This record gives sequence, structure tokens and C-alpha cells, in this order.
Amino acid sequence: MSDVPGRRLRSGLLVDLYQLTMGESYVAEDLAERSATFSLFFRTLPAGWGYALAAGLENALRYLEELRFGEDDLAYLEETGLFGEGFLERLRSFRFSGTVRALPEGTAVFPSEPLLEVTAPMVEAQIVETMVLNEVHLQTLVASKAARSVEAANGRLLVDFALRRTHGGEAGLAVARASHLAGFDATSNVLAGRLYGIRTAGTMAHSYVESFDGELEAFRAFARAYPDDSILLVDTYDSLEGTRRAVEVARELAAAGHRLRGIRLDSGDVAELSRAARAILDEAGFEDAMVFASGGLDERDIAAMLEAGAPVGGFGVGTRMGVSADAPFLDVVYKLVDLDGRPVLKLSEGKATLPGPKQVWRVREGARAAYDVLGPESAEGDGEPLLHEVMRGGRATWTEPLQTARDRARRERESLPDGVRSLDAAPYEVRLADSLVRLRDEVAERAHG
Amino acid sequence: MSDVPGRRLRSGLLVDLYQLTMGESYVAEDLAERSATFSLFFRTLPAGWGYALAAGLENALRYLEELRFGEDDLAYLEETGLFGEGFLERLRSFRFSGTVRALPEGTAVFPSEPLLEVTAPMVEAQIVETMVLNEVHLQTLVASKAARSVEAANGRLLVDFALRRTHGGEAGLAVARASHLAGFDATSNVLAGRLYGIRTAGTMAHSYVESFDGELEAFRAFARAYPDDSILLVDTYDSLEGTRRAVEVARELAAAGHRLRGIRLDSGDVAELSRAARAILDEAGFEDAMVFASGGLDERDIAAMLEAGAPVGGFGVGTRMGVSADAPFLDVVYKLVDLDGRPVLKLSEGKATLPGPKQVWRVREGARAAYDVLGPESAEGDGEPLLHEVMRGGRATWTEPLQTARDRARRERESLPDGVRSLDAAPYEVRLADSLVRLRDEVAERAHG
Repeated sequence: MSDVPGRRLRSGLLVDLYQLTMGESYVAEDLAERSATFSLFFRTLPAGWGYALAAGLENALRYLEELRFGEDDLAYLEETGLFGEGFLERLRSFRFSGTVRALPEGTAVFPSEPLLEVTAPMVEAQIVETMVLNEVHLQTLVASKAARSVEAANGRLLVDFALRRTHGGEAGLAVARASHLAGFDATSNVLAGRLYGIRTAGTMAHSYVESFDGELEAFRAFARAYPDDSILLVDTYDSLEGTRRAVEVARELAAAGHRLRGIRLDSGDVAELSRAARAILDEAGFEDAMVFASGGLDERDIAAMLEAGAPVGGFGVGTRMGVSADAPFLDVVYKLVDLDGRPVLKLSEGKATLPGPKQVWRVREGARAAYDVLGPESAEGDGEPLLHEVMRGGRATWTEPLQTARDRARRERESLPDGVRSLDAAPYEVRLADSLVRLRDEVAERAHG
Repeated sequence: MSDVPGRRLRSGLLVDLYQLTMGESYVAEDLAERSATFSLFFRTLPAGWGYALAAGLENALRYLEELRFGEDDLAYLEETGLFGEGFLERLRSFRFSGTVRALPEGTAVFPSEPLLEVTAPMVEAQIVETMVLNEVHLQTLVASKAARSVEAANGRLLVDFALRRTHGGEAGLAVARASHLAGFDATSNVLAGRLYGIRTAGTMAHSYVESFDGELEAFRAFARAYPDDSILLVDTYDSLEGTRRAVEVARELAAAGHRLRGIRLDSGDVAELSRAARAILDEAGFEDAMVFASGGLDERDIAAMLEAGAPVGGFGVGTRMGVSADAPFLDVVYKLVDLDGRPVLKLSEGKATLPGPKQVWRVREGARAAYDVLGPESAEGDGEPLLHEVMRGGRATWTEPLQTARDRARRERESLPDGVRSLDAAPYEVRLADSLVRLRDEVAERAHG
């Protein structure tokens, strides 16, 4: 029960059925081993968002390395009657053998830019679509959403409180990781602390306060357990009465050579209450006790509070960040762009794609990112190429500590124009290289012709 | 890799830190073994929603039965320096030993009604909060969201296509299960097919079509593999041209004694295209080939299409159902309501709770649910009591096939007033029993006094 098996679901069957039925056809038609390149990107950013932060690559690479079909999986597939022996044999010996090029985690990314490109035998590249999308989508979504709180909090402490309402425990882990990558300081998720080395943090619940004969008794009991690490939740009955009781405990702690870390406000008009609570703490001489705020917050609440001058030193940000409440998905897709060296596109209404493997070049003016150029992989571009080879022959060739990705995310955010970082962001320019426009027109011409 | 370990993450550390620090204090204060009752409920329904369907109970019970802290978990906790030997010993022998009363899965549930009540030693009831909330939240959310598509589709085929953008693979499984419980017919998620016995379904991707020299060649190849089970994706280049090519393949299949199952539209004005495609199929004599629609659909798109008379026989519903896009969380909470037989409440602004363990009675007029009564567990009520004991002494006493819960969900939906089932729903009445109102006032009086 303990040893963190199942950090991800481990069955090759965690896949859309059509990946397998198409595979059956590819094997039957002897088309399974052609070399295909798929490009993973999103078409648009949610309203107000200026950028996304690429994330989820580590999980995606681990998925590719570990993907297998076990005998139980194969027995189930055989029972469905949908698959012939040739395809089932292909699955029995399945090892992903392809190459992956990707944006390192923490890289700022914009619509139409590949987060990742997979080149592999068609049947392999197709089967991995579902979960490569899934892994990259969730963490990119949450890192990007969390980055907005990081921008808004402007250096104040941020703690991930999302686990109770994330879409599963696995999502809770991904949220802790992705929000830390984006700049959060700590998480309430203890397993994420153990797995990823993220600092864990927490305060106390209303039930704790209610389970004592009075609020003061509850505060004293918690301070006995954590004399230098207590943040007392003061809103169970009345936030300012609670703050005064916290001051009593702070005095008792100080008398014994300890110190109260702070108080937590979790309901009511937190901006206003924070000012009143701050005044109570300050008057009593506890200027360094923090006012910590929580309770259904997102980046806009944080920005509004700080704009109103609320003296809040830290924020617990939960559900709205963890499910990316106002934008719970990105329109990520995984599109075939090349088959045996032939560029491919799709013309569907409103869903057309750009052909061929690609590169993204970031052009800087000084330290500041000025614009990106999206072009064919084979082209030469000005600026810094952002897609790197991260896997070859099915083995990851890129690995880095989470802290490295977190540092990159910070540098990337800081390099963006202010307008792009704002909560109501200005768009960032992504130019199409002339060579890509020509290629698109040529391929479209051929498809129509 | 195959044998479906880790259908859920298995570590006791998948928990909010404060559950453990509160536990440390409870053990230190000798308060850990007092009997506590917590009630899990939501305060409001998302805009437009008339009801929720309770779900996730099976996973929650399994979590409670299996929760353990392994030696690696304990070693990590010890390293944090936050915990004493007494508490770590309590965790080492941790087995959830409590009682759970709950709404069976598929029961229609309304704001303030407990989905579940846990009675256990305080330290146990507190530690399980995070993941019991998480398990019940996700499936209740998705089952309720999916039920809206079921209402809108009014008997047409519904297939879960969400896996690629659910918040993790575990969420994808939960979505397949919860949407099936709510009335979906099939899922693209093969592992959900294997684990839950749900019918799997799928069509083909644009990449498949693009990987052949022409659309007709692609359709023919797929029909060779699945001569009686092909739904051909017709929108890669031009939806109506594609439909005409599908008709060619339908003729070839018919000549060989087989039949085309249908076509899929995935872009453009699907309502309008479906009429044109239907006409092409009908003219050619393929009245029983289905027009299947997909592409970013939710219940409102389905309702709008059917209202416009679109001849669509089935819908693939993905991301917007799977992340519950317009309402990606419910405000579920888990609140202390009783401690050693003493009813407890919380008075926080806008977050007050009702004291004591509860029961919900559903009062019917004929087959139709008329209103619910929320009262103290110990009271006698008119109508059908909905909360049942599902676990005692840490062992589940309630288990049922998914199909039973699915049948219940259908009966429950059908028993609700039409207005409550509508996509812009009228509210359903939940009355507070007089005895609960009296209890609340007494306990509030005491807390203030």
C-alpha cells in the first residue's frame, strides 16, 4: 500500500478504442511501420491568458518508456473480437521506439506552437496519442493557471490547497507538481512533498476548533504541538474575536520563547478583515505574525485584495487553481504532420493544421522576448530554437530536476512583455515563417488537386 | 505494467498535511479516540442544474478499507520533524474502523443533503477527509454533468470520448464509470471497458484518413477490417464529399453482404451538415446508416441540434462532459456535526452548518418525487429515508453492481419533476424538519452564550 506504485495508471488499455482499431487496420494493410510525425499543440488560449507554461513532459516520457500490454490486457482485447492475431502480436511485443522533440517544462508557449512532436512507426505514434495528450494537457493547463496566481501574488507565499477537489488523487499530485513548477511555494499534498521534494504546509480545520470546548482552548492545544509553526484559523465563530484569542496565545508563546507564525482568514470580506486583523496583531506587538488568506480564491481575488492594500502575507489557493475553474481545459490536439517524409495537413472547417515537423524560434530584444517564429523544422531561423530532442529510440535523453524547470518558468515569465503577463493579457506575436506558409499552400494545393 | 495496480494511488500520504498535524495534536491531547461524525454535502448546485446524482461511493469505501501508512510513508513523516512517536505509532497500525451512512450511487441529491456521513474516532474521521471528499466529488460532479447530456439526447446513443483531456488517466476512468452510471451507453476508454464492463466504442481519427492516398482508400481499408462495424469520419477534407465516398463504400459493403454502420461529423455546422448527409445516405438507400456527431459538444449543443431537427443518431461527448467544463467543481464540504454525542456547528460567515447526524426523507406523490425533508438522523420522517448504512467497523456492508446504480439513476431521473430535469432547471424543494431547526437554534445559542 505504501510504495507509491500507481503514481500513474499502468495498463496499455488506458487508451481510446479507435487507436487500437486503427492499429488493427494498419497492421492488416501493412502500413503500421511507416514513419509518422505528430505535433501536439493548442489552437487558442483561454480568455484573458497571455501565455501557457509547457509542463507534463516528464510524465509523458515516462509513459512512453513504460507502455506495455500485459497478457490480461491482450486477453481482454481478444475477447472483444475486434482484433486479429497479427495486431495482438504487435501489442504483445510493444515498446515505444520513437523520437520525441519537445519544449522543456516551464517554457512559455503560445497558440499553434508544438509543445511536443512524436516521430515513430505509425501504429506506435497513434496508440500513444491519448495518454501523451492527457499527461501534457493536465500539467500545462494547471501550470499556466497557477502562473496567473504567481503573477498576482507578486512574491507573497502561495500554497496549493487543491487536493480535496482535484479530479482524482493523481490529478492532485499533478496539480501540486505543476503549481510548484509555476512558482507556488508549498503544497498541502503530503505525497507530493515526498515524491517531488516540495515543501508541505497547512494550518488547521474548523472541525479542529469546534472539537475543543472553546476557540482559545483549541488554539492553545495546537500551539502546544507546534509552538513555532502555528497558523491559527480564526473564523470559526467570529474572525476578529478569533484574532484576539490568537493574540492571547501569541503572548503565551512569546513568554515561553516561541512565536506565533500567523492567523488564517477563510470567510467573509477577507480584504477588510485582513486589515482589522493586522491592526489587532500589530497593536499587540506581533508585526511578524502573518495574515494568511484562503477560501475559494483565484488569481483575480488575489490581485483585487492586494490592489485594495490588504496586508495578506500568504494565500492558500485550492479548487479554482486545481481544476483551472474558469478554463478547465485547453484545446490541445495531436495532429499528423508528416508521413514517410511527406508533409500532411487537415482542411476540416475551423480545424485546419499546418504541415510538417516544426521548430519554434524565440526572438529576443535584450532580455525581453519580442516575438516567436513558427517554421519547418528543417529551416534556419533567427532567435533561439525552443524544441529539443528529449527521447530517441524510445529512451528519454532529457531529464532534469523539477527545480530546473521551476527556475526556467520564472525566467520565462520574467522575459515576457508586461502586457502578456497581465491577467487580462495582450497577445504575443507568433509569426509564421515564409517557408511554412509556402509549404502549407503547396500541400493544400496537392490535397485539393 | 498490465495488471491494473494503481487504479487509485495507494499511499496514506495522499492527504492534506493539516489532517496529520491535527492528528498529532489530538493524540498529544488524548482526544484522538473521541467519536466524531462528519457530514459530506454540497451547498449549491451550478447554474442551471436541477439536481446531482450521488456517485463515487464505491471508490470511497474501497479507499477507507485499504488506507494504510507504509514504512516509507512513516519514514518520510518522521523526517519532517512534525510528528511525535505516539502519532506515528497510531498511523503504523492505522485501519479505518468507523461507520459510514450514505446515499446509494445514482440517487438524486440536492444542496445541504448529506451524500455521506462518517462516524469514527476523531483522528480517523479527520485523516480520511481529503480523499473521501475527492472520490465522492469527482464522480458526483461528472455523473451529474453527464446526466444533463442524457436528458438532452433523449434516448440517442451517447459515447464518452473524454479520456484525452480528463485531468489524468485516473480521472478518465472515473469519468467513464460516472457517465455510464448516469446513462451513457459506451466509452472510448478501453480500460474502463475491461474494469467496469462498459461497452467500448470508437470510429477513426483524421490522421487515419490522411495516412492513405485518398479518403476513399482510407474508408475502404477500414471497412476491410470492420465490414459490419465501421463509422467513417467524413470531415477531413469536405464533409459532404466525404459522405458521398462513404456511400460508395456502403454500396461495396452491401454487395458483399455487409453494412456500413454510419458516418461521423466532427466539425462545421453539424446540425446543417447532418441533414445534408442524411439526405445523401437516404437517397442511396442507406436509411439505417447512422449520422454520428462529435466535436466539442455538451448538453446544450445536443439539445440545440435535436431542437433544430438534426437527424443525428448518436453523440460522442468528450472534454466538456469529462471536465464538467461549465462547472468543473461542486462546493462539496466535509463538516464536523457531532462529537461524542454532542451536536456541533460552525457559524463562519456564509459557511454556517447544520448540527448533528442527519437523514433525508423523499416524499413522493404517486411515482413523482414531491419534496425532500432534511432532519436529524434520530427523528421519524414521512417518505423514504435515503441514507443507508454502507460500512460498519471499517468493512463495507453495501456493494452492488454498477448496473444496479445505473438503473437507480434512471429511475431517479424519471421520478423528478420535469422542471428539475430541464437544462435550465427549476429548484427542487428541500424542507428542514422542525426538529432540525430547533436543534440548530439551541446549538447556536450555546455557542454564542
